[in-house]
Amino acid sequence: MNRLKTINVALLGLGTVGSGVAKLIERQKEELPYKIGANINIKRILVRNKEKYLGAVADPMILTTDWQDIINDAEISIVIEVIGGIEPTKMYLLEALNAGKNVVTANKDLLAEYGRELLETAAQNHCDLLFEASVAGGIPIIRPLKQCLAGNHLTEVMGIVNGTTNYILTKMSSDGMDFNEALQKATELGYAEADPTADIEGLDAARKVAIMASIAFNSRVTLNDVYIEGITKITAKDIQYAHELGCDIKLLGVAKNTPTGIEVRVHPMLIPSTHPLATVNDAFNAVFVHGDAVDDAMFFGRGAGEMPTASAVMGDLIDIARNIKFGCTGRINCSCYKSLPIKHIEDIESCYFLRMQVDDRPGVLASIANVFGNNSVSIAQIIQKTSSEGVAELVVITDKVIERYFNDSLTIFASMSIVKEISAVIRVYSGE
Amino acid sequence: MNRLKTINVALLGLGTVGSGVAKLIERQKEELPYKIGANINIKRILVRNKEKYLGAVADPMILTTDWQDIINDAEISIVIEVIGGIEPTKMYLLEALNAGKNVVTANKDLLAEYGRELLETAAQNHCDLLFEASVAGGIPIIRPLKQCLAGNHLTEVMGIVNGTTNYILTKMSSDGMDFNEALQKATELGYAEADPTADIEGLDAARKVAIMASIAFNSRVTLNDVYIEGITKITAKDIQYAHELGCDIKLLGVAKNTPTGIEVRVHPMLIPSTHPLATVNDAFNAVFVHGDAVDDAMFFGRGAGEMPTASAVMGDLIDIARNIKFGCTGRINCSCYKSLPIKHIEDIESCYFLRMQVDDRPGVLASIANVFGNNSVSIAQIIQKTSSEGVAELVVITDKVIERYFNDSLTIFASMSIVKEISAVIRVYSGE
Repeated sequence: MNRLKTINVALLGLGTVGSGVAKLIERQKEELPYKIGANINIKRILVRNKEKYLGAVADPMILTTDWQDIINDAEISIVIEVIGGIEPTKMYLLEALNAGKNVVTANKDLLAEYGRELLETAAQNHCDLLFEASVAGGIPIIRPLKQCLAGNHLTEVMGIVNGTTNYILTKMSSDGMDFNEALQKATELGYAEADPTADIEGLDAARKVAIMASIAFNSRVTLNDVYIEGITKITAKDIQYAHELGCDIKLLGVAKNTPTGIEVRVHPMLIPSTHPLATVNDAFNAVFVHGDAVDDAMFFGRGAGEMPTASAVMGDLIDIARNIKFGCTGRINCSCYKSLPIKHIEDIESCYFLRMQVDDRPGVLASIANVFGNNSVSIAQIIQKTSSEGVAELVVITDKVIERYFNDSLTIFASMSIVKEISAVIRVYSGE
Repeated sequence: MNRLKTINVALLGLGTVGSGVAKLIERQKEELPYKIGANINIKRILVRNKEKYLGAVADPMILTTDWQDIINDAEISIVIEVIGGIEPTKMYLLEALNAGKNVVTANKDLLAEYGRELLETAAQNHCDLLFEASVAGGIPIIRPLKQCLAGNHLTEVMGIVNGTTNYILTKMSSDGMDFNEALQKATELGYAEADPTADIEGLDAARKVAIMASIAFNSRVTLNDVYIEGITKITAKDIQYAHELGCDIKLLGVAKNTPTGIEVRVHPMLIPSTHPLATVNDAFNAVFVHGDAVDDAMFFGRGAGEMPTASAVMGDLIDIARNIKFGCTGRINCSCYKSLPIKHIEDIESCYFLRMQVDDRPGVLASIANVFGNNSVSIAQIIQKTSSEGVAELVVITDKVIERYFNDSLTIFASMSIVKEISAVIRVYSGE
């Protein structure tokens, strides 16, 4: 163990998460020497506008707008990045690693697209690059996947990893709100950003599932590999039918390691109300994991927010500081030593919930059933209700079927005069 | 990183968990060089009776009944202990650590009583002593508490950490079974051991909560510090009332870090059916954690069984192997750098569920209420039902009160002729 008394760090960004990290370092000041064997000192904070943050720090001299002040400071051994975005952040982190500085980052955008480059650079320089905060905020998930469950062949990682959409779906489910009303409520409460696109269209969840899949399956999965569908088409009516079927609708990030390749996707899904993930409500997140040894496990908590995210950053920071003391930075690095194929969404098997408006007259059900039969789609359950004069609402739950075959049926339905509207198509959790 | 190609380990015990670990090392054979940078070789297995296990290993020569074959073998750098019990296990592990061998153990009995001695010995010898499997089987909890959440001031750890009792309570709750019937069912299914005392009396859960509290609060908590009450007095009727009150009854291990000391106890508890722990059924385990930064988090999974427990052992084994490769064993060790007082159960505040049989005549309720009032016990809720001729069943839920005051009321009730029986006293979860 080396004799270093103080480990100097630089903070890139002093926004919500950055100020949370600064608070935690201060709060833990007396504990850190016991936890690490050294103090942690924030030597520099990179901000865009010094004036804005003068009141936020005890010593304004640590604020800088110049990255050179950090990269050229040999005393700084850890860079904590909480700015977000791709550039200039990526350049900062690559430069930091190449200068032998360790990195903690909460940046899912960067990891989900450039994880390989960053992790390889870290490895070349025997540096740590830790990113617990990039997935599911305060919930410990990266370290459990990489270390605790390392003795498993993990076959499934499935999670509610976006709090905004989970809040919206919870409101739709419990209060019968429609999507727009629930989105407005989420915006008012600060759960949704001014531009909620990345959340409601599933992009944010997709980045997180790409990162988790890469670690769980030891094979690189990037954002581009993820099939993405958001929740904007989900209606109060779909949720009502889901309840009738003993299910809830959640936006799930699903990654499976199958013998024919990796399935990785984000889309709304009906899951049985008895499934542990169904009980995860409001802005909470949870990740469900299946492995050959551990069987089922689930991790639950706050997936966002100043202090929960800072908690994850702080765990990484303490870990790196310990590694510095013990001279073993780079001890755990990129674990993607395989190169598994990614399956196309059309080749993936799912069960489906299909809601459609059809002519309310004899023979129609037989025609629908025929189309399914001809396309290898087997029907598990069917509900028919009269929706308005001459039109019936039909809800079909299918057995497991390859998506392509199911889509072939949809194409045929679209061309049939008895089918007035395909109102909803939602995948259904099938338990394996 | 050193050039070691093979890391030799010894397995103490080849029972359920031991054979699970052997299976996982075999299953992961091709992955381990990527995960660790070396192979893992089981060089020796300590058993009581070699003949019994001849068929269980590829090379019977690795079986030994002599500890000296292991302790004197300088090539063995990790000892995996899955025998259980206090002696001779404790001696083995101390000798192993003093010989510079790292240790993985699943032994909660040992950790909960002699954790300090073992961890200090490990530290003196710069060895790792990891014990993820000792609490909640396959669920990652030790590493999350020690590392991921290290930036938190943790104030609460609360868990369902005994699968046997949770199975029994689930059966009593869902099928209306009484305790003995549910216990018999658990025994038939192999969830309960031939002598189920340690489980149903709460001892097993107490060991686990002592270990978790020590880590979460950075202060040593041993088995003797834990107040323990089992589930043998819980009746189907209590569970029925709990349901009426919107609650379930669970055997909870509770540890709280309060300004006046550590509260640590295992007892049945009414918790609201909406609490995440209430949905943890059958033999599943879960640990709920609260920290100043992370807020609420929960870890869920299988708390026992061959492969889940082996999964936890394997995670520790891989971690130590990496530390050996990087020359940093002993990097994370005893974290009990504080010495906080333990609160006596009589000084702890709780809400209570009290079920009693009283004379069914005017003025009785007033007498009961008077006794409570005189002892600073405030009533939150009351249910009265006629149970048989002349006798009424009274269920009282109290507000938060110091246990001593509540017990004073009970003593007075016991001496009152209008009170026929104190049928049940169960603590109620109060949310902070």
